[in-house]
Amino acid sequence: MSSTAPLTYDQAGVNYDLIDPLKVTAQRAAAATASHLASHGFTEVQASRGESAYVVDVGPFYVASIVECLGTKTLVADEMAKLTGKSFFAGIAQDTIAMAVNDLITVGATPLVVQAYWAAGGSDWFGDAQRAQALVAGWKAACDTCQVAWGGGETPALAGIVEDGRIDLAASCTGLINPKERLSVGDKLGPGDAIVLLASSGIHANGLSLARKLAERLPQGYLTEIEPGLTYGEALLAPTALYSPVTEALWKAGIAPHYCANITGHGWRKLLRHPSALTYRIHTVPPKTAVLEFIQKEAGQDDREAYSTLNMGAGFAIFVKAEDAERTAQVARDCGIQAWVAGTVEAGPKQLLIEPLNIRFSEDDLALR
Amino acid sequence: MSSTAPLTYDQAGVNYDLIDPLKVTAQRAAAATASHLASHGFTEVQASRGESAYVVDVGPFYVASIVECLGTKTLVADEMAKLTGKSFFAGIAQDTIAMAVNDLITVGATPLVVQAYWAAGGSDWFGDAQRAQALVAGWKAACDTCQVAWGGGETPALAGIVEDGRIDLAASCTGLINPKERLSVGDKLGPGDAIVLLASSGIHANGLSLARKLAERLPQGYLTEIEPGLTYGEALLAPTALYSPVTEALWKAGIAPHYCANITGHGWRKLLRHPSALTYRIHTVPPKTAVLEFIQKEAGQDDREAYSTLNMGAGFAIFVKAEDAERTAQVARDCGIQAWVAGTVEAGPKQLLIEPLNIRFSEDDLALR
Repeated sequence: MSSTAPLTYDQAGVNYDLIDPLKVTAQRAAAATASHLASHGFTEVQASRGESAYVVDVGPFYVASIVECLGTKTLVADEMAKLTGKSFFAGIAQDTIAMAVNDLITVGATPLVVQAYWAAGGSDWFGDAQRAQALVAGWKAACDTCQVAWGGGETPALAGIVEDGRIDLAASCTGLINPKERLSVGDKLGPGDAIVLLASSGIHANGLSLARKLAERLPQGYLTEIEPGLTYGEALLAPTALYSPVTEALWKAGIAPHYCANITGHGWRKLLRHPSALTYRIHTVPPKTAVLEFIQKEAGQDDREAYSTLNMGAGFAIFVKAEDAERTAQVARDCGIQAWVAGTVEAGPKQLLIEPLNIRFSEDDLALR
Repeated sequence: MSSTAPLTYDQAGVNYDLIDPLKVTAQRAAAATASHLASHGFTEVQASRGESAYVVDVGPFYVASIVECLGTKTLVADEMAKLTGKSFFAGIAQDTIAMAVNDLITVGATPLVVQAYWAAGGSDWFGDAQRAQALVAGWKAACDTCQVAWGGGETPALAGIVEDGRIDLAASCTGLINPKERLSVGDKLGPGDAIVLLASSGIHANGLSLARKLAERLPQGYLTEIEPGLTYGEALLAPTALYSPVTEALWKAGIAPHYCANITGHGWRKLLRHPSALTYRIHTVPPKTAVLEFIQKEAGQDDREAYSTLNMGAGFAIFVKAEDAERTAQVARDCGIQAWVAGTVEAGPKQLLIEPLNIRFSEDDLALR
């Protein structure tokens, strides 16, 4: 591969074609275990199967739970620590919590408890006090922002599994959907609903394999300035936006989303996540953040490739009644997160039409179920 | 180190002295986040801080949650797959779920939902269909045994963080303590209670670093026969016992444990886990399983060292009213798990006295809080 050839996500080392079939097999086996809940007097919310978080009806409310991995963003933080002497692990902690919390809230849940999963390549990872303290401080700060209790966690040393000097970070999250009418999976979504997009803070924690590959072919690597005073590495490490303050504020404002999509792996194709056959027509495309624009340009990606793998400026989608759309965007802005009324849901074949960019994604482009 | 010198846990690569201080710092930061629950109308069960699972009072019942790592047992499974051509990942799946479920039940919770965390060193890990299917099948079977719903999970490919060809396995678990009187943390434990020990099925998933180190200095390695027809590797890979059927059966039998301890890392020192100053006097020591006896002998460990790091035949401790002790052991046996009324709780300094072995562990031997 020449250094000016376009860089695709598969070339960057993540092959969803190998992973997705296992996911499907596992999802089928998982679905067959739902009947066990009856022995405890409970039932699953079947519509949550295949959604971002799993939901159980325990009577007075629903319980939602999830575990989520950060991915490979720590590799950028490790490299930037070497280059700058700074620790970026406070931001990395926020990224990790965002992966779990932003998924959990898609079903309408209020996140209550986060558990930390910090699996290091050896005990000595925890001996670097500055880095370890940054991880702790950032983890706590993100819990404060999301108003969740940090319940505890696991800090294993896994020499031989996790590479020496590295750490595998994940978070689990448990929450309640309370009152039950906040549940936002199932058949609430329908034609006429509006699509509100919330701004991302940068690349978030998906697409980092691609971003790292790109750094290798930049003459100055992570220290390349993408705008005056901002290096590529620092821009990549902007912590992922936490969206639970928005979903909580929406509920307080009397707005119950019909559906939500956390725009992570598979980029904007995640807007097709809901199982119904519906057409999503986007009329307003949020500005790309500087780092995403830089990646797209340097990787030589066309819009279709970029929007199919990266968030491209929109980190979270909220589907609401059309009459609630403007107010939804305003609530988000009041929480400090830019937002746009970006499109509409229509009857029609399952497809996403990003009209300003002349892109169409169909059901075949997202085989998650 | 000569090949006949005693092998300690620290020499095997896990240095808790480096990890435990971070744990303490993290636990303090975590404790400070508990107040967020009030903004949602809930409170934490403070006595669950520092216990194996975190508990929140949500009104009609308590919610318990946890995330747990398998550790390095997959390295044994990988090696044994090379040596025998068999896949041991069905058992490995059970081990992983056991780590989470056996911890969650210590607080009195009924496990309801398990989430899978399968972080591979690359997408190709999932391309080995036999191994991947064994992992799925074993995961489902363990969920069936524990009567939990498999909610979903995460299957990231983490090249650069997880080593090539390896997988980092963990499970999160959410459950309910329902009715609330099942809660088994806090001040229920007291002098006069009995200690019932449940049999382990082998090494479980703690002490594997030591076990692997030992394999390196055996001339036939994992293929060493520890008894006729049973290799060291196979014996190590006996799946961890799942204890939630016992705790559920106990509740149905009208027995509510005052406290429970999952005997994992730190071995029998985990019997000192409860924060109260109490003396635990053991009068009956369960038989070691063959593999633990083999490890102790080959590693040249004295009893004190062995019982301070390995489960030595007892995988789980249940503390009950003295009058419930025999019946508790019988309920466990009816679930297919051998059990012994092994000791008593007494007023006195915080210490564990294993009388048949003349061992004393004091508070200083377990600095987890």
